[in-house]
Amino acid sequence: MSMAISFLSDFGLDDEFVGVVHGVLGRLAPASRVIDVTHGVARGDVRAGSLALLRAVQYLPQGVVLGVVDPGVGTDRLPIAIETEFGFFVGPDNGLLSPAVAVVGGASRAVVIDNPEVRIPSRGATFDGRDVFAPAAALLASGGAKFEDLGSPIDPAVLTPQLLPLPEVSEGSVSGEAWWVDRFGNVETNVSPEDLAAAGIAEGDRVVVTVGSQSREAPWVRAYGDVDEGLPLLHVDSYGMIALAVRSGRADQFFGLGEGTAVRFVKD
Amino acid sequence: MSMAISFLSDFGLDDEFVGVVHGVLGRLAPASRVIDVTHGVARGDVRAGSLALLRAVQYLPQGVVLGVVDPGVGTDRLPIAIETEFGFFVGPDNGLLSPAVAVVGGASRAVVIDNPEVRIPSRGATFDGRDVFAPAAALLASGGAKFEDLGSPIDPAVLTPQLLPLPEVSEGSVSGEAWWVDRFGNVETNVSPEDLAAAGIAEGDRVVVTVGSQSREAPWVRAYGDVDEGLPLLHVDSYGMIALAVRSGRADQFFGLGEGTAVRFVKD
Amino acid sequence: MSMAISFLSDFGLDDEFVGVVHGVLGRLAPASRVIDVTHGVARGDVRAGSLALLRAVQYLPQGVVLGVVDPGVGTDRLPIAIETEFGFFVGPDNGLLSPAVAVVGGASRAVVIDNPEVRIPSRGATFDGRDVFAPAAALLASGGAKFEDLGSPIDPAVLTPQLLPLPEVSEGSVSGEAWWVDRFGNVETNVSPEDLAAAGIAEGDRVVVTVGSQSREAPWVRAYGDVDEGLPLLHVDSYGMIALAVRSGRADQFFGLGEGTAVRFVKD
Repeated sequence: MSMAISFLSDFGLDDEFVGVVHGVLGRLAPASRVIDVTHGVARGDVRAGSLALLRAVQYLPQGVVLGVVDPGVGTDRLPIAIETEFGFFVGPDNGLLSPAVAVVGGASRAVVIDNPEVRIPSRGATFDGRDVFAPAAALLASGGAKFEDLGSPIDPAVLTPQLLPLPEVSEGSVSGEAWWVDRFGNVETNVSPEDLAAAGIAEGDRVVVTVGSQSREAPWVRAYGDVDEGLPLLHVDSYGMIALAVRSGRADQFFGLGEGTAVRFVKD
Repeated sequence: MSMAISFLSDFGLDDEFVGVVHGVLGRLAPASRVIDVTHGVARGDVRAGSLALLRAVQYLPQGVVLGVVDPGVGTDRLPIAIETEFGFFVGPDNGLLSPAVAVVGGASRAVVIDNPEVRIPSRGATFDGRDVFAPAAALLASGGAKFEDLGSPIDPAVLTPQLLPLPEVSEGSVSGEAWWVDRFGNVETNVSPEDLAAAGIAEGDRVVVTVGSQSREAPWVRAYGDVDEGLPLLHVDSYGMIALAVRSGRADQFFGLGEGTAVRFVKD
Repeated sequence: MSMAISFLSDFGLDDEFVGVVHGVLGRLAPASRVIDVTHGVARGDVRAGSLALLRAVQYLPQGVVLGVVDPGVGTDRLPIAIETEFGFFVGPDNGLLSPAVAVVGGASRAVVIDNPEVRIPSRGATFDGRDVFAPAAALLASGGAKFEDLGSPIDPAVLTPQLLPLPEVSEGSVSGEAWWVDRFGNVETNVSPEDLAAAGIAEGDRVVVTVGSQSREAPWVRAYGDVDEGLPLLHVDSYGMIALAVRSGRADQFFGLGEGTAVRFVKD
């Protein structure tokens, strides 16, 4: 029984990189379903890739997660595979996989993919997605290799973490940051509804949102439809985090927010 | 025996929205093939989405059509499933599905997807594609739920229609509009070859094409290759409608046409 | 046993063209895996499409390759299918398929797809990807038609070749051209490491790279990580060709290179 493979990268779709990885998966795991999580991660943006995987993982079929956002390809960063209760995670040891691994319960075992027999021989050293990670993912999914056959064991505790910023909660205010702007301009923050509650801010309140020197007001509502067209709102987004939106508009522009921008919420 | 699921949305591919929906489908309908019709519909453009689905539906495998262009998510617009002879259609009740449903013979039954047991629980109210529509589509495709178990029956006659403009035919001329500009700049109109015939215009004729105050001439030919490089033409496109093109060029720019622009054809 | 189908085109993903072709494949070859090699080939750029297919083919599952970059659709260019030891190639006879066919050992047989029974009837003449090529590919993959039933035999020797420029090697220098700029700005050339070796240039050397009137220096190293951030390099890329890169930057901009630009390498 073949496992599903869920594949995320920063390869984009203009070139054939994604297709070639699918080709390798199709050759080595012909019975596996392959799901493209997204290939639109900004070039080399490991943190954005790790957050996308974190948001997606609980909705993916159990099996293998193949993540390739790998600005360090061709350096000494390690290619790794991680065993969890959810299944296997394969990719570079740069923090890309860490938040998703943590959310599914953590790693039970890890290996460095250094067994030359599970790699595709290649003259170049720039496409480990094709030559190292895809074969490892496919062999795990198809049962063509055992986890421990991929290479040398490594202590999961020494794998590179992804340090995600925590919000600061005080009486009446929470300071956090924007950590995802989607293609609609909606802005997810690292602030949870519990953080706002701890500061005394509740659904239904009006909230002052401060970005840099600019403050704007928005109500905390349940959904876009609770405000008029063109107006801003705070809400709990589909991943359970506090997000800023503008109904039929772009909150990133309205509030002046990009990924990583600091944002402060104060009860009005 | 699992049915195929054909999925259209305005989610784009920059974020992981499409991948997450594929994840849900993969979990609940692991044996179903999933076809991405397109995810490039302009944000919230229900009419453009409905036309893309209308053009595509006759070429899709019978089974389930999942359509999510849903500017009203989080309002009281209804999530619906429709039964037809082709199979099932799942999406918001905003006219997105109506033209495709009509072209495959109309609805035999419809339900509001309001059974909480077929939804994925979520704190947010902004991703019904993942939480409501994908599970319903997957359960229909896999046989995991019966149509009537998705929720409350609703009279198909009260579902939101998609009002598509009809061309006006008079002696020697037809007035219509551009309703699709593809990525190559080809422009499909809502005018059929029969409309032109009724106005006395035939293949082989030269036609005056008027957009706003500007008139340009083009021959009605069979294919791009019937005119020289860079020259304009009228032809019956691959969906049987009158379209404007420029060989190896962009008709939208040449004629000054965008989606919804009025256009008039007069025999030269 | 159904074969895999690998599909490359210049359709882009904004419209439903790719989805409709998947629909036809799903109807006629329901058990075939379909791999999207890429649909990001520039509009009508047959050479770029042929190079993408050439790079990808050795990594694709054996089966059917469906290639549609077809600026001559609606002219008298022939729709063809080619039999090879790898499997079948289906597309227009314009040189798109030729390099990939050659690299897998050449054509054993070829046919013009002119049997009306294997085409989808259509009023228009502009979407052979849907009406001619997809059905042929699906029927070959599913075994629904024999190769010789697709149409009239044609001598493989008369098929349109893709003439790829050869580099010129002299003592101490090699003149070639850029033939692929990927989305990261990396530039692959038509120069092989053997060409540089024949000119007396070896890995580890510093090389003068001349584009137009501008010369810049870069070391020939193994991987990006061998130079500092922002610095240029020559290396053997993942397809075995000499490529120019800038670590965490864009080599196309740094060197002033686009697809087809002449470039000269001289030992420093």
